[in-house]
Amino acid sequence: MKISALKLHSIAIADPPLRSSYGRHAPWALRTIVEIETDEGLSGVSETYGGDAPRAALEAARDQILGRDPFQLASLHSQMRNETQSGHDQTWFVPGENPLDQQNRTFASIEIACLDIIGKAIGRPVCDVLGGRARDRAPFSAYLFYKHGGAGGDATYRDEYGEVLDARAAVRECRQMIDQYGFREIKLKGGVLDPDIEIDTIRQLRAEFGPKVPLRIDPNCAWSVETSVKVGESLREELGGGGYLEDPCATLAGMGEVRKRLLASGNDTPLASNVAVTQFPDVIAARDRDAVQIVLSDPHYWGGLRQVQYLSHLCEVLGMGVSMHSNSHLGVSLMAMAHVAAACPNLTYACDTHYPWQTEKDEIVAGGRIRFEEGAVVIPNKPGLGVTLDYDQLARGRERYEKIPFRKRDDEAEMRKYVDPNWKRILPRW
Amino acid sequence: MKISALKLHSIAIADPPLRSSYGRHAPWALRTIVEIETDEGLSGVSETYGGDAPRAALEAARDQILGRDPFQLASLHSQMRNETQSGHDQTWFVPGENPLDQQNRTFASIEIACLDIIGKAIGRPVCDVLGGRARDRAPFSAYLFYKHGGAGGDATYRDEYGEVLDARAAVRECRQMIDQYGFREIKLKGGVLDPDIEIDTIRQLRAEFGPKVPLRIDPNCAWSVETSVKVGESLREELGGGGYLEDPCATLAGMGEVRKRLLASGNDTPLASNVAVTQFPDVIAARDRDAVQIVLSDPHYWGGLRQVQYLSHLCEVLGMGVSMHSNSHLGVSLMAMAHVAAACPNLTYACDTHYPWQTEKDEIVAGGRIRFEEGAVVIPNKPGLGVTLDYDQLARGRERYEKIPFRKRDDEAEMRKYVDPNWKRILPRW
Repeated sequence: MKISALKLHSIAIADPPLRSSYGRHAPWALRTIVEIETDEGLSGVSETYGGDAPRAALEAARDQILGRDPFQLASLHSQMRNETQSGHDQTWFVPGENPLDQQNRTFASIEIACLDIIGKAIGRPVCDVLGGRARDRAPFSAYLFYKHGGAGGDATYRDEYGEVLDARAAVRECRQMIDQYGFREIKLKGGVLDPDIEIDTIRQLRAEFGPKVPLRIDPNCAWSVETSVKVGESLREELGGGGYLEDPCATLAGMGEVRKRLLASGNDTPLASNVAVTQFPDVIAARDRDAVQIVLSDPHYWGGLRQVQYLSHLCEVLGMGVSMHSNSHLGVSLMAMAHVAAACPNLTYACDTHYPWQTEKDEIVAGGRIRFEEGAVVIPNKPGLGVTLDYDQLARGRERYEKIPFRKRDDEAEMRKYVDPNWKRILPRW
Repeated sequence: MKISALKLHSIAIADPPLRSSYGRHAPWALRTIVEIETDEGLSGVSETYGGDAPRAALEAARDQILGRDPFQLASLHSQMRNETQSGHDQTWFVPGENPLDQQNRTFASIEIACLDIIGKAIGRPVCDVLGGRARDRAPFSAYLFYKHGGAGGDATYRDEYGEVLDARAAVRECRQMIDQYGFREIKLKGGVLDPDIEIDTIRQLRAEFGPKVPLRIDPNCAWSVETSVKVGESLREELGGGGYLEDPCATLAGMGEVRKRLLASGNDTPLASNVAVTQFPDVIAARDRDAVQIVLSDPHYWGGLRQVQYLSHLCEVLGMGVSMHSNSHLGVSLMAMAHVAAACPNLTYACDTHYPWQTEKDEIVAGGRIRFEEGAVVIPNKPGLGVTLDYDQLARGRERYEKIPFRKRDDEAEMRKYVDPNWKRILPRW
């Protein structure tokens, strides 16, 4: 079996004005849908970061991919992978724009489409190709954002959640999301409002949903070590019991200092990271400093599903927990995340997903949006990823992409446009 | 697809009187051939340790195995695996008798047979099931032993290599083995004769085969720290340039001390281990002490082919090299070792194999013994492991097993019987 075609579809999907320490989401998120066809008539699909750069990287790899047996992934990975370099973290890059993992991201999108092909060739779900299921359903968390009022996209989209710029609105958002999806863990994207408001938000979430629903907060490095310690102390009870404090401040040195100070007062709230830990050597460095106790995996930028399996195993050996990072995405990415979550024994937290922030109108998966059962995606009894493309929907996504002017995510620009003409990302902000 | 039958064949194979720090090989080595059949008519095979205990462990797992989908290996591993415990090394156990990895060994034999089935189900070699080939051929080393005169088995077997109890005879043994198999790396099992004789052996091997053929010596912990350092210093040049010093003394503490002293005199000969490092947490402990720079994998006791992939990846992340351990074995084990060696990008040394010490007469693989090309096993373009059983040969192996009185490897007993009635394994001996 040989790869006979590589088809790239750049699409735009509506994205609400979500806030984070990076700024504000633009009305459209960019994605690339990758289709790989083989000379035996089987094809596979994957979804990755959008815009010019990821597409150009895939185009540049075309000659390495065409003619290749989709089973021969180890050798392709050896050719394409980035050299691992520790100490160059993602503090100043949104995931998907760190030049240090560009090759890993490109490889991942090829690997996932090839695994889809392999699954179809053998009539098995992708998770079975990876060694079988540690679980039959992949748990996801309610991923809460502070947001401005208004839907993403254009006037044809409806704002499901309204404005969410205080604790009370965040609780309402969470209730609505949990009612709809059944999530059993909650993550709040912080680093947006004054830390006291964010502390209050977590407390109100705990009051509303009770201690059986683990809570986590992720300010994407917006806080100083002092502030991180203060928040960690204030939320000692709320983030304990299965929750965590994610990337409170920048760098492993900073996280290590926060951990040290929290432990000194008997507070063992674990610290999680997908900013200071983005490459395998970072995991070791994080463990050596005890700077991070939970690593967020992500098949997109860690280099595919097998690399996430390796990461999960590495963390198990080191006694570290594993969760999963997400970016704005559609159903193809969701299924890739679900399959690898099913295949990894050491997945100790429900995965992040932006999926509730996207809409039926933009879904490119045939049959419409993936359904959740009690906050989890059940692995379908279908070959490969278990999804097929709706080509009409895909064409609409391409049309939207052609109509919009930008080709790269820039959350700072959106802040300057809508909120503050002088806004800059400043770390630490508090 | 469901597993419908588990068939166990206990066999005995002739084994020459090879020497190591454990004692002397008995005239027969014990192996268990595992056959798994499915309700869809496909069957798979694996080879593991022999005698009563491994068979009893497999019998005890029978109910967990029957009725199971052979693709669902992750969940079976979670059920069967040993809890990892560092600090309990294999110093006093021959591989295959360490109670701490008994479950891993049992699982491995099931996993490998299931991977054989999966490969056949999809028409692909096992290495392609594991992610594809990092290499098309698995390199092995000439595994030299000091030995007494005489063949293994009974009078019907021929002593190919004669007595080897000094440096000159070892060079002759090596020349004969390399002429026949084409190996390009050399490993000497030491810990048998006075260290000065073993040093002389390595020097004569270097003189005979030149600096392009890497050399390693493995006394299985027979030496004190002092002696280990002395040998390391004496063989600084010979073990450098791609060779290594394997398990010179017992425990990570001992190895760490040897490393420290060698480095202090500018000698960075790497230390390898399959005695002090037999579980994943040991790898981390070894790295933290800088006690071991090369880990010997082994699909049999590390828990199967995927666990060896994880080990290889872990070592890569830690900047450690990887080689592969061997026990007396036939062609089924050789092929399992070859497939995983092909699938692991981070395999930095040719694998060990006892295969030259076994004979055509005992091989149970249809078509006779596996062939080597320039010291390597070429991955065959066949589904699964690429071997089928010769049931007549298997029946002969079972008959031999029934005729012999012992059911457990005991190299000390052989020493007492043939060499010294008071012989005991003493560590350190020198």
